Amino acid sequence: MQLISDPLEMRRWSRGHHASGKRIGLVPTMGYLHEGHLRLIDIVRNQTDLVVVSVFVNPTQFGPGEDFLTYPRDLARDRALLRDRGAHCVFVPETADMYDSDQMVTVVAGRLATHLCGPGRPGHFDGVLTIVAKLFNVVEPDVAVFGRKDYQQLLVIRQMVKDLNMDIEIVGEPTVREADGIAMSSRNSYLTSEQRPAALTLSQALNKAQEIIKGGERDSQTIIDAATELITSYPATTIDYISICDPETLVDLEIIDQPALMALAVKVGKTRLIDNMILDPQA
Amino acid sequence: MQLISDPLEMRRWSRGHHASGKRIGLVPTMGYLHEGHLRLIDIVRNQTDLVVVSVFVNPTQFGPGEDFLTYPRDLARDRALLRDRGAHCVFVPETADMYDSDQMVTVVAGRLATHLCGPGRPGHFDGVLTIVAKLFNVVEPDVAVFGRKDYQQLLVIRQMVKDLNMDIEIVGEPTVREADGIAMSSRNSYLTSEQRPAALTLSQALNKAQEIIKGGERDSQTIIDAATELITSYPATTIDYISICDPETLVDLEIIDQPALMALAVKVGKTRLIDNMILDPQA
Repeated sequence: MQLISDPLEMRRWSRGHHASGKRIGLVPTMGYLHEGHLRLIDIVRNQTDLVVVSVFVNPTQFGPGEDFLTYPRDLARDRALLRDRGAHCVFVPETADMYDSDQMVTVVAGRLATHLCGPGRPGHFDGVLTIVAKLFNVVEPDVAVFGRKDYQQLLVIRQMVKDLNMDIEIVGEPTVREADGIAMSSRNSYLTSEQRPAALTLSQALNKAQEIIKGGERDSQTIIDAATELITSYPATTIDYISICDPETLVDLEIIDQPALMALAVKVGKTRLIDNMILDPQA
Repeated sequence: MQLISDPLEMRRWSRGHHASGKRIGLVPTMGYLHEGHLRLIDIVRNQTDLVVVSVFVNPTQFGPGEDFLTYPRDLARDRALLRDRGAHCVFVPETADMYDSDQMVTVVAGRLATHLCGPGRPGHFDGVLTIVAKLFNVVEPDVAVFGRKDYQQLLVIRQMVKDLNMDIEIVGEPTVREADGIAMSSRNSYLTSEQRPAALTLSQALNKAQEIIKGGERDSQTIIDAATELITSYPATTIDYISICDPETLVDLEIIDQPALMALAVKVGKTRLIDNMILDPQA
């Protein structure tokens, strides 16, 4: 497995392989990898000839007071996991190699970022799109794959690819969960064992919502109220949002008469967790 | 000369030629071509194997009340000029082919757009960068060339290429002037013969500024006052701005102790004209 930190060398690597007819897949990550990331590698390996995994904790997608400095990092462990999983190249740029001190041009998400995580994390999706655009221009992949745990991120990236005429296939993969049901996330490493039952309420609330719908309920607010009650029964939790919305536009739905996205963000202690599920009234 | 309107066909054309080792140059234009545009073609022909000229009046770089609808268009004339000048391909997309009705992701210029034309044309440079990013992703050129008449546009595009890690060489070419000194612009077609003397004051003011500096003056305001006096001696003129600034950052300079950009925007009747010159205190 190749380790590359220089963006120009990364592009040369990709172009060399493209010139010999190879298809390249990219898995952009912030590192501290878990099984969710590793499954993305499996997917890309099946669709392309070569898998590049980028590991870069992107400062521009963190807001003031968020966890940029404390975000978990362990490159040695990540490299071992990637090698074992069959990645061909890991791209680990320095911050200064990705952002010049006079960086000023950004990619801005627009309307999709006014929903869900957008209002509570101003500039977050612009930071995501800017770094993803940069990574796309450096790695020049044919395919890039993202997890559906970050559902809104996946949607915003698809929109960027379409709106900026990028020729990259974007693949979204189902959330991978821990044995107890918690959606895998590098941030789960922040949770104490006392906090895990509170963290588990995110997926429990989603499952309960689907159950309630199965029982015939179609009113979003009723379902959101039930989820709120379940989650706030743990005093360590603070709800950022619980939303039932259109899976394409993210606009809130009052009545669930079509497959709907239920998405939520909850702080457990200081750890902000997100999860989501498609609620299907026909299920 | 190939005429292409479909973005996907445009990309196929470029990729086909790239695959056989050809280098491609792009001249992005809004059409209604003049000698300034045609010189850009000569430059690109010398640096690459194939010249693509895009002709697209980009709605997102026009503000409310600006001249999007009346902007001069004459594709038959443009095609003849391009064929005679040796362009290999003209790319003329429909608006609906470049902008989906749900377009929402944009490229945003940031700090460089807070100077000169930026404040008077909010969103203009974001519109420019968004369409140029799209054209770059469709045509995939090795080189793209722009005129220095739109100096700030050239600077903002260079910044985008650097900040978004695009691998495209950006070339800037000197302004081409009409016999009387007016900078060539498609918008000159709006001018009546009575307005031309007023329009001529832009280049006259720049030349006068360089003369004053040659005489030893170094104070920007003194030079701006002289330019203002010259231009406003014609009642048809309204000054949008006259600025003497750093040629890289566009920040105003009080004292001209280095090569400085003098840039100005003036309305002559309803026609907004711009021009600029590098003032050299050593000249």
